[in-house]
Amino acid sequence: MNGKNIHTFIGADNEYDESRICIFGVPFDGTTSYRPGARFAPAAIRNESYGIETYSPYLDKDLNDINIYDCGDMELPFGNTERVLDMIEEYTGRLLLDKKIPVMIGGEHLVTLGTIKAFNAFYKELHIIHFDAHTDLRDEYLGEKLSHATVIRRCRELLGKDSIYQFGIRSGDREEFIYAKDNVYMNKFDFNNLDMIVEKLKGKNVYLTIDLDILDSSNFPGTGTPEAGGVTFKELLKAIYKVTEINIVGADICELSPVYDQSGSSTALACKILRELLLSIKG
Amino acid sequence: MNGKNIHTFIGADNEYDESRICIFGVPFDGTTSYRPGARFAPAAIRNESYGIETYSPYLDKDLNDINIYDCGDMELPFGNTERVLDMIEEYTGRLLLDKKIPVMIGGEHLVTLGTIKAFNAFYKELHIIHFDAHTDLRDEYLGEKLSHATVIRRCRELLGKDSIYQFGIRSGDREEFIYAKDNVYMNKFDFNNLDMIVEKLKGKNVYLTIDLDILDSSNFPGTGTPEAGGVTFKELLKAIYKVTEINIVGADICELSPVYDQSGSSTALACKILRELLLSIKG
Amino acid sequence: MNGKNIHTFIGADNEYDESRICIFGVPFDGTTSYRPGARFAPAAIRNESYGIETYSPYLDKDLNDINIYDCGDMELPFGNTERVLDMIEEYTGRLLLDKKIPVMIGGEHLVTLGTIKAFNAFYKELHIIHFDAHTDLRDEYLGEKLSHATVIRRCRELLGKDSIYQFGIRSGDREEFIYAKDNVYMNKFDFNNLDMIVEKLKGKNVYLTIDLDILDSSNFPGTGTPEAGGVTFKELLKAIYKVTEINIVGADICELSPVYDQSGSSTALACKILRELLLSIKG
Amino acid sequence: MNGKNIHTFIGADNEYDESRICIFGVPFDGTTSYRPGARFAPAAIRNESYGIETYSPYLDKDLNDINIYDCGDMELPFGNTERVLDMIEEYTGRLLLDKKIPVMIGGEHLVTLGTIKAFNAFYKELHIIHFDAHTDLRDEYLGEKLSHATVIRRCRELLGKDSIYQFGIRSGDREEFIYAKDNVYMNKFDFNNLDMIVEKLKGKNVYLTIDLDILDSSNFPGTGTPEAGGVTFKELLKAIYKVTEINIVGADICELSPVYDQSGSSTALACKILRELLLSIKG
Amino acid sequence: MNGKNIHTFIGADNEYDESRICIFGVPFDGTTSYRPGARFAPAAIRNESYGIETYSPYLDKDLNDINIYDCGDMELPFGNTERVLDMIEEYTGRLLLDKKIPVMIGGEHLVTLGTIKAFNAFYKELHIIHFDAHTDLRDEYLGEKLSHATVIRRCRELLGKDSIYQFGIRSGDREEFIYAKDNVYMNKFDFNNLDMIVEKLKGKNVYLTIDLDILDSSNFPGTGTPEAGGVTFKELLKAIYKVTEINIVGADICELSPVYDQSGSSTALACKILRELLLSIKG
Amino acid sequence: MNGKNIHTFIGADNEYDESRICIFGVPFDGTTSYRPGARFAPAAIRNESYGIETYSPYLDKDLNDINIYDCGDMELPFGNTERVLDMIEEYTGRLLLDKKIPVMIGGEHLVTLGTIKAFNAFYKELHIIHFDAHTDLRDEYLGEKLSHATVIRRCRELLGKDSIYQFGIRSGDREEFIYAKDNVYMNKFDFNNLDMIVEKLKGKNVYLTIDLDILDSSNFPGTGTPEAGGVTFKELLKAIYKVTEINIVGADICELSPVYDQSGSSTALACKILRELLLSIKG
Repeated sequence: MNGKNIHTFIGADNEYDESRICIFGVPFDGTTSYRPGARFAPAAIRNESYGIETYSPYLDKDLNDINIYDCGDMELPFGNTERVLDMIEEYTGRLLLDKKIPVMIGGEHLVTLGTIKAFNAFYKELHIIHFDAHTDLRDEYLGEKLSHATVIRRCRELLGKDSIYQFGIRSGDREEFIYAKDNVYMNKFDFNNLDMIVEKLKGKNVYLTIDLDILDSSNFPGTGTPEAGGVTFKELLKAIYKVTEINIVGADICELSPVYDQSGSSTALACKILRELLLSIKG
Repeated sequence: MNGKNIHTFIGADNEYDESRICIFGVPFDGTTSYRPGARFAPAAIRNESYGIETYSPYLDKDLNDINIYDCGDMELPFGNTERVLDMIEEYTGRLLLDKKIPVMIGGEHLVTLGTIKAFNAFYKELHIIHFDAHTDLRDEYLGEKLSHATVIRRCRELLGKDSIYQFGIRSGDREEFIYAKDNVYMNKFDFNNLDMIVEKLKGKNVYLTIDLDILDSSNFPGTGTPEAGGVTFKELLKAIYKVTEINIVGADICELSPVYDQSGSSTALACKILRELLLSIKG
Repeated sequence: MNGKNIHTFIGADNEYDESRICIFGVPFDGTTSYRPGARFAPAAIRNESYGIETYSPYLDKDLNDINIYDCGDMELPFGNTERVLDMIEEYTGRLLLDKKIPVMIGGEHLVTLGTIKAFNAFYKELHIIHFDAHTDLRDEYLGEKLSHATVIRRCRELLGKDSIYQFGIRSGDREEFIYAKDNVYMNKFDFNNLDMIVEKLKGKNVYLTIDLDILDSSNFPGTGTPEAGGVTFKELLKAIYKVTEINIVGADICELSPVYDQSGSSTALACKILRELLLSIKG
Repeated sequence: MNGKNIHTFIGADNEYDESRICIFGVPFDGTTSYRPGARFAPAAIRNESYGIETYSPYLDKDLNDINIYDCGDMELPFGNTERVLDMIEEYTGRLLLDKKIPVMIGGEHLVTLGTIKAFNAFYKELHIIHFDAHTDLRDEYLGEKLSHATVIRRCRELLGKDSIYQFGIRSGDREEFIYAKDNVYMNKFDFNNLDMIVEKLKGKNVYLTIDLDILDSSNFPGTGTPEAGGVTFKELLKAIYKVTEINIVGADICELSPVYDQSGSSTALACKILRELLLSIKG
Repeated sequence: MNGKNIHTFIGADNEYDESRICIFGVPFDGTTSYRPGARFAPAAIRNESYGIETYSPYLDKDLNDINIYDCGDMELPFGNTERVLDMIEEYTGRLLLDKKIPVMIGGEHLVTLGTIKAFNAFYKELHIIHFDAHTDLRDEYLGEKLSHATVIRRCRELLGKDSIYQFGIRSGDREEFIYAKDNVYMNKFDFNNLDMIVEKLKGKNVYLTIDLDILDSSNFPGTGTPEAGGVTFKELLKAIYKVTEINIVGADICELSPVYDQSGSSTALACKILRELLLSIKG
Repeated sequence: MNGKNIHTFIGADNEYDESRICIFGVPFDGTTSYRPGARFAPAAIRNESYGIETYSPYLDKDLNDINIYDCGDMELPFGNTERVLDMIEEYTGRLLLDKKIPVMIGGEHLVTLGTIKAFNAFYKELHIIHFDAHTDLRDEYLGEKLSHATVIRRCRELLGKDSIYQFGIRSGDREEFIYAKDNVYMNKFDFNNLDMIVEKLKGKNVYLTIDLDILDSSNFPGTGTPEAGGVTFKELLKAIYKVTEINIVGADICELSPVYDQSGSSTALACKILRELLLSIKG
């Protein structure tokens, strides 16, 4: 009676040792101030992935042709954000030591800070390409330095100047946009200058963080703060194909909130984005 | 123990006397024949507004830089439409006497009739720019002259010929389209001739009424009669920027129905539209 | 006391004998493996149709000007798929004998196989134009030959080579895409070569089957497997107008799942598609 | 092709002339101040009735053994309450002239006023047994005399003293409870003295109005103002059996709101109550 | 990187060989005629089980003290009911050969027929104790012999007279109740004579099948046909404790439909019932 | 134009200085491990309170007759639990210094710890009466000392032995029940010995904390971990009337989660509980 209780992302059923790319889920939304629910994203993405196929007609590639290991979800407490970030950092660090390409499924966007700390310790001169509707550049939020709204500011402080490249941004306080001018590269609203940036980052170590609310809220209503005026699914796909031309050492997708996805369409879309990302990253 | 019980639209926390623009909510959907719920829109928009920022990266302006007063919601009975319209007319009239620019949050579209009556008494030669999926030009609906489906017909009767300019229309009875030919300016489906009309109305007193179902149902499912084939959020934004180049003496946004907005994305979009509208109107 | 218990699609209230086009509902989703619910589509479409008008401003035509009979829904058991398909075949066959143009409202996509069997017996050299996100070309699914995922394969086996023309396809196993190469005409992702195919099929008997998930999931979330990256409502309308230039002997729309359509926007869209289809088919 | 488009309550498929009991739906909730939705109850009850059986194991009786005609739903406008009540009165009057026992499916509770006016004109010395959580004895609500919160007050004014017997009441303003003392018989919270009242009303003409929110909110969450602390389903059944021992000349069930009945359990319960009521009334 | 992808019912994490009790899920609802969704129950019960504890304060026992193996879910096709029942029979048969006590998590109630066939082949003189709101004694349903509405009739035909003991029954056609008189023991509405029956069945091989809709719909709205007038959770618990005093050779719980359980309370209740059942069965 | 933007609990519209009882909301659920949402309870309770009346027919008292001040909601960050508890402690402390009786609306149950710290500093020999389904007596949860699952353990450590009296408990780890034996008074499942405990605590300072999941999940599905087998609404009311016979110095109601309350019935019930509590506390 072979138990059918093992749940992985579709096609990610390889052994750890054989796999260059490792998926792991970070079911954490503990600093989400408004509408929580991103904690349920990793489980929802795995379940829903069986509604899509392993084969991509876009790329004519199949997940079954490459080795991917699904580590499952981290077990994380709520209420002590520092400890959570330490746990994510330590977890990512072990993957990096094993020479893996970690692909993280959030969770809220703050989880990226934990993983970036590990990358920063492992790689020198790390760059981040950041797809998002929001700047995430606040200095603090309700008195807290660690927040989904401050995560890229913290990354910027960690990595130094000229390390962060933002695309799709259309929301933030005025102060964040002012801060951005001197501290990060910001391409508002769309992917207009992505080709140029990708060209510039050739040969560098690049981490790609995708807050899925970069998508227009018509494509992606199932998130805590859905944002009209964003990019389309097809534009995001194209941007991912472009970015993965260069050396992606790690990546994440964040902020799916299945609670607000009654139809399942946002979760299905996230699965497709993850499939295309996994098929595009050079192992 | 300062109570935090005061709920206003984000950034609309100024004093009445200092504010040129005044927001007020009209939680009424008493003639909605099919799916009620627009009565909940004003409260939902205020709550949800804290999920957006006061700053617009589109306009590089901030709600905190201008004075706006949020009057709160009118308290209205259901079941006696004439009385409700009288109450809205009287309420709007007081704002006009105080030299305010009223910006109304509906509610179903019929509420516009109440407010237009006050404008008509106050301004001579009023024009209406009307964004909508529906003509709203029926003569009656199930025997009633006062209905969400007749509101623009009633306005037309009030204001006379050459007073009404419709955009985005894609639904109605054949009779309504026939009536339109001789009675209003109608631009079906899109904003194609908006520039021309705006040019024509320069120097006039213009009221802008936005039935949010002008948006494609992918952008705006959260409404009583969602309509495919509409304009995009970006197109609507652009149209608002264009219209506000001229003299807008009042405006409204109608027909958000939060009951049908499980993800919250339609409500969030309505908040953004309202923010951009408030930032664009010349005070 | 005239009962108002008769529910038909809006405007489809003519007598059987006077009507060339006959609508019938097939509330069946018995092979749906993941998320059932398409069985509720026919009833939902009839109810929701009273939220749209009989008049099309796109075509300047009105359903009241043509004769359409709504046969109501078939009463079908669940659990015995062969019998269900036989019942659909027999039912369609009777309509064809009466020289009707059957327009079927699914249900899951497998119902098309039942109706195609009847068409195949009635018309020689039948062609199918197939709008869908999925190939539906599997040979079997979990050991079953009769499945929503195999329906077009079965049709292909029935009708022979050069009979099937697919548009909008963006999901399937690699094997399905390989099978497609030698067995059907497949236009991936969009309607690019539709004009050419329509030209080619002039004078032929053509059946149009529309799996509504050809639409982008932003337009049509209310379906069992919503698929990002699809066509827009406007593109689908235009494709329907193009296809109905030729001799459409029957048609269907499938895979609306009202259970996953909290806002009602997908159901409303399906009603509009059906209205435009009915107005476009040459009777 | 016999259309299966005729929707009646289960078992209520007899001819008008043969039926002593006539069901009719009144899809009106136009004075509902807080959460509308009762307008959808008649349609929901008919649909859901096919999930129950015509046979009652409680009574060992079957709906198929008695003749019931389902008149369908009245078509009513929204926004003009007086006219709606006139229409209900006229409609009920016609049924009474034809010597029917009208059983009305609301809608909000105000609809009872329309029907009671017809009964009052037809029967002299009418009594009302009223099952409800709320007194419905306000004199006005937001300035309106016609409201779901005033309906029993209006009935009392119409019928005179000693005509109204309330059971299950647990909510109302203090003034309503004071008014009740001199004007109606009120049994708070439960059915304690029901036997006594039924004994007293033997031989009289009695109308039974059931606001389903008399039920505890655990049994009946699907209503506009669900009220904890109510009677159970079994208690309500028993009370109906008791009341129908005497001469029931008409009855209604009101205030199911399917919008708030995600599980369908409240609608299913309403169907069972209606079935038991129909089986219990002496024809 | 130990994957946390193994999903079992809480506490059911023992090895197969060490476990006398084996849980398995049967995600099938292929004959459900009205509202499908029971297919999602096994997964939902496993997920939700982490919201309850392994310890029962009712019994002062802990799931961690006994060995239970969770086999996971069977992978079943839809649309071919006979084959599905054969697969369940074969699967159950293997568990019985390995001397296990199978505890099945449905799925719709028809799945019980598959498992009973295996029990009937393995044990001679099998008895069924059947908790349900419905008789499930129809001879056929829409022409089909295999249906959730016929399952106990088929079991009766298989096992012979005096083999089936029903409790809690409150719905069915009149014919079913007539059939019951000569063919099964039926205790309507409640558990009144359960003690007597348990006494009678001492020393016999008894299979316990629980259709969770035996519960009052207030306790258990999350099912396809919620039924008012049922037993309470506490009554069901007590009945389970009573029945497990005798020799239970297998059991199942059926008809949770998580789709209709917005609050999660029905799923949580099902988890508790399963925990108490597992703790009560004598291994 | 008097703004109607001030939102208070119904009837709680008095001035701070005149009010002995002060309500305040604590929209925090930052340690909720499974299903967050209690953060939305204070706002939902205020909104929904307008669906109930100020008058209690149970007590024949009216909220309008007593002075209650609604402080509104605290503004709290997420992710730093220690700081949140400090803020609640400080806030409560100010109310106590002003000689108020604080009545807190949670939020998750951990918020009680913050407020108890303030009470412990202010009152000597404080006792807690604790209504709950869960013991909340864990020492830690996923390594964290501060959690909704540990809150009463922390209170016990703070207040010492013989200070805590639990009722209704039916869930917890075995270790919690063992710990309970020597550390708290625990009445499992119901209120059986409540009279005795109330007698014993006469003249003492008693804090009443109500986790609303003490209610049976049929009465109260709208909570993060709904628990079958609990007390009824009527039993809870009676228990509150009993407890308020003695000296209640503060109280709270926790764990309503409006997200899981589709019908609104749980929120309405919470409003009634709060009304009855406010009317019962001796000011």
